[in-house]
Amino acid sequence: MPATDPDELPEGSQLAALDIGSNSFHLIVARYEHGELRPSQVLGEKVQLGAGLKNGRLEPAAIQRGLDCLSRFSQVLQSVEPRRLRVVGTNALRQAKNRREFTEPARDILGAPVEVIYGREEARLVYLGVAHTLADDTAARLVVDIGGGSTEFIVGERFEPRRLESLQMGCVSYTARHFSDGRLDRRDYEKAYERACVEVSHIRKSFRSRHWQECVGSSGTLQAIEAMVTGEGWSDSGITRKSLARLRKQVLSHKHVNELSFSGLSEARRPVITAGIAITEALFEVLEIEHMRTSRGALREGVLYELLGRLRHEDVRERSINAMQQRYSADTETAALVARRARMLFDATRETWRLGAEDGDLLERAALTHEIGMAISHKHFHRHGAYLLRNSDMPGFSQGEQEALALLVAGHRGKLKRELVEELAGDEGERLARMTGILRLAALFKYVELLEELPDFHLGAERAALALEFPAGWLEQHPLTWQELYQEQRAFERLGLALSFR
Amino acid sequence: MPATDPDELPEGSQLAALDIGSNSFHLIVARYEHGELRPSQVLGEKVQLGAGLKNGRLEPAAIQRGLDCLSRFSQVLQSVEPRRLRVVGTNALRQAKNRREFTEPARDILGAPVEVIYGREEARLVYLGVAHTLADDTAARLVVDIGGGSTEFIVGERFEPRRLESLQMGCVSYTARHFSDGRLDRRDYEKAYERACVEVSHIRKSFRSRHWQECVGSSGTLQAIEAMVTGEGWSDSGITRKSLARLRKQVLSHKHVNELSFSGLSEARRPVITAGIAITEALFEVLEIEHMRTSRGALREGVLYELLGRLRHEDVRERSINAMQQRYSADTETAALVARRARMLFDATRETWRLGAEDGDLLERAALTHEIGMAISHKHFHRHGAYLLRNSDMPGFSQGEQEALALLVAGHRGKLKRELVEELAGDEGERLARMTGILRLAALFKYVELLEELPDFHLGAERAALALEFPAGWLEQHPLTWQELYQEQRAFERLGLALSFR
Repeated sequence: MPATDPDELPEGSQLAALDIGSNSFHLIVARYEHGELRPSQVLGEKVQLGAGLKNGRLEPAAIQRGLDCLSRFSQVLQSVEPRRLRVVGTNALRQAKNRREFTEPARDILGAPVEVIYGREEARLVYLGVAHTLADDTAARLVVDIGGGSTEFIVGERFEPRRLESLQMGCVSYTARHFSDGRLDRRDYEKAYERACVEVSHIRKSFRSRHWQECVGSSGTLQAIEAMVTGEGWSDSGITRKSLARLRKQVLSHKHVNELSFSGLSEARRPVITAGIAITEALFEVLEIEHMRTSRGALREGVLYELLGRLRHEDVRERSINAMQQRYSADTETAALVARRARMLFDATRETWRLGAEDGDLLERAALTHEIGMAISHKHFHRHGAYLLRNSDMPGFSQGEQEALALLVAGHRGKLKRELVEELAGDEGERLARMTGILRLAALFKYVELLEELPDFHLGAERAALALEFPAGWLEQHPLTWQELYQEQRAFERLGLALSFR
Repeated sequence: MPATDPDELPEGSQLAALDIGSNSFHLIVARYEHGELRPSQVLGEKVQLGAGLKNGRLEPAAIQRGLDCLSRFSQVLQSVEPRRLRVVGTNALRQAKNRREFTEPARDILGAPVEVIYGREEARLVYLGVAHTLADDTAARLVVDIGGGSTEFIVGERFEPRRLESLQMGCVSYTARHFSDGRLDRRDYEKAYERACVEVSHIRKSFRSRHWQECVGSSGTLQAIEAMVTGEGWSDSGITRKSLARLRKQVLSHKHVNELSFSGLSEARRPVITAGIAITEALFEVLEIEHMRTSRGALREGVLYELLGRLRHEDVRERSINAMQQRYSADTETAALVARRARMLFDATRETWRLGAEDGDLLERAALTHEIGMAISHKHFHRHGAYLLRNSDMPGFSQGEQEALALLVAGHRGKLKRELVEELAGDEGERLARMTGILRLAALFKYVELLEELPDFHLGAERAALALEFPAGWLEQHPLTWQELYQEQRAFERLGLALSFR
């Protein structure tokens, strides 16, 4: 299911990845040369979006800080085609109920959508980024990335992540909770440490030392800690348990973060480093880490390699869809049949309805998974399928894409619930409403198509209308389909579309 | 997990099953003799509860009709111990939003709860009832039961149902929709027939003639149709396609149902028989049925055999729980560990908290499935588990039991959402709130128990309080558990319980 042509990635193309993190924004631009990516620009700014999160909402000042940063970054992006830029948002945007107040102007500035990704998807991409910086040996490794709002854990081998986890714990959120006034106090530190231990203990079983041979830290926090302990001569390379303890003692011998002075500790990082050390000590303790080296590979590199894969048609999303079909024992024959029919209807309507190549892929993926909910129960299976698509870990998909798949599957049959119709209102919704209409027809025809060939029929699309014309007499010979099409007219009305047939 | 002792079913015990249907209420009382059940009383009344359903609510007059019938039935039930009576409610109660206005006084009259069961569970029990009336041959059979509000379809062999389905289509609801004024009109009949064809076409693939060798009808509607067509001499035995067509013609030659007169058609059934014939013709057509014989076995007999199985500890619910664990690849070791711990906590609190044997079983089943949601995602896995328990087809469980399992699993960890706490308010809720507390503790300890043995600790239960006393020094050596217990105190408060420990 190629969304772009193979030859759309000529030698010398520029690709870019932008990571909108809770602590920092990171941009990487790279050139595609001889089948490889060569970074040409790397930018980072400590925007601290997460610090502007109050009661689950981003404050206007934080939004402005973020957009200002994007405006600066956008200068570098002039030379990158929008479809070769991928922008991902992590924990701060996951949490923010008013995220659209940021993502919509951001889209206008960047020319590409901001995809908010789940924690486990973030972990997968971090691993991909780190794996590209490491020797291609076969030892199992634990990769840890301490972000501003969440921390990602991955156990993997070579380029394959095996276990992924994301915990709600990061240096910005822990600073806000335990060190908000900048004072350094042993008891505050202990509370932060204990809290982190409890968090990490929940994933101990699958991530403790027996599951890996080496440990690699990603993220600015861990790189700063490594620079500090090696700079002080407490470790020759990497972070050790002992050097961490000395660092903690040294830090806590001061009264305020402003007094901290280490080579390797930037002024921007100073306010959040104490929380970062507490979290790091907790994970050394609970996961039995003795030594951790760090890697410069991170989320942004992972996003870049992922984008390269997609442009080369090695799309991990196809594997995810297959995995969902397998896990829920979907009838793949029926699914493929509906996907084919959906693709035909899509091809016939895409121009009039201004649908893009990505929409076609989305529609096909919805068709391929439209029956997975039957594993739970035949009754309301479309709703169960939507639940699974919304809540499962689906490598390669953003939250928004999973949500769109869920809406299509939820709306593909039966009465359209009011909440669903409301979700399909608005600009973005119009596209989805049309795709819902296509999927409904494709699914309606499956009952015929499983028994006999559907005749060629004519399909006329207008701005908000669809007309089906069957060979003379065919509908009369298929009264059930006829009646279902009548019922379908009402559903189409609720989608803002007029359906006619004869 | 025996809820009762094996010797609790002595020779001569009386068992009873009561089916609260949309059209009729049916009671059967039987004696347990030589390992068999011998019916001693069979009562039926055409209460037409479903006809009193307006906008999803039961009207007061319908509730009163139903309760009056139960009062009459209760005279016969004097000699039956309440725990040997099982009462199930079907489609009318499934639909009624105000079902408690019926089920609560009904419970007071009968001394046993009214269990509202899902359509597929109804189908399973119908099959069980029918299978006991048929020769024990190995031919695959289709069993159909046309009820007042829903129609059940089962393909099975011997005592094993293989495929179950329940459709929202019944003789009472179709009468209300198409023949409400009692007039007989060819066009109304055709609409009802077409509508039924569309409904049935959705399950055609799995229930059409290629999947079975014989077809058996249960329910009063099909028995009446059989009596009518054989009474008129249009069929020697059973219902044939031709005899159905003659019956339809004969019925539609009249102007009003009051004019209908057939041997085998009771006055009570007259108003709903036309809708029943339309539905029957539709299923003959769509499922390719040529001949149907009828069986007197029905839901009530199925419920009775199911009850016998439970009292003998052949509880199909255990199979369902195992199936859920398998399907969602649960870690059975951890599940068993939590179930054991929950059972211990239950045994120590049941008297003070007035919990019954059934509560212990429920708690154990919740413990055995508490991790199934991890198949969807580790994040919020308790909520995913609750979703699966609420929406899956789980043979042997009533809606209420599945809902209770879902509440326990949803509440077993993390913050207790307000909606959940509200569900746990009230009389019924208090029991569930306590069981939630037990399950939370059992799940909290699993992180320790997977690594080391938990020491014996003292547990003191009071009316609304629980006190844990660990061996001296143990909590100090397990600071994570200690901290988690502190966090647990807040959750217990929300459950209306005080938790203390030392």
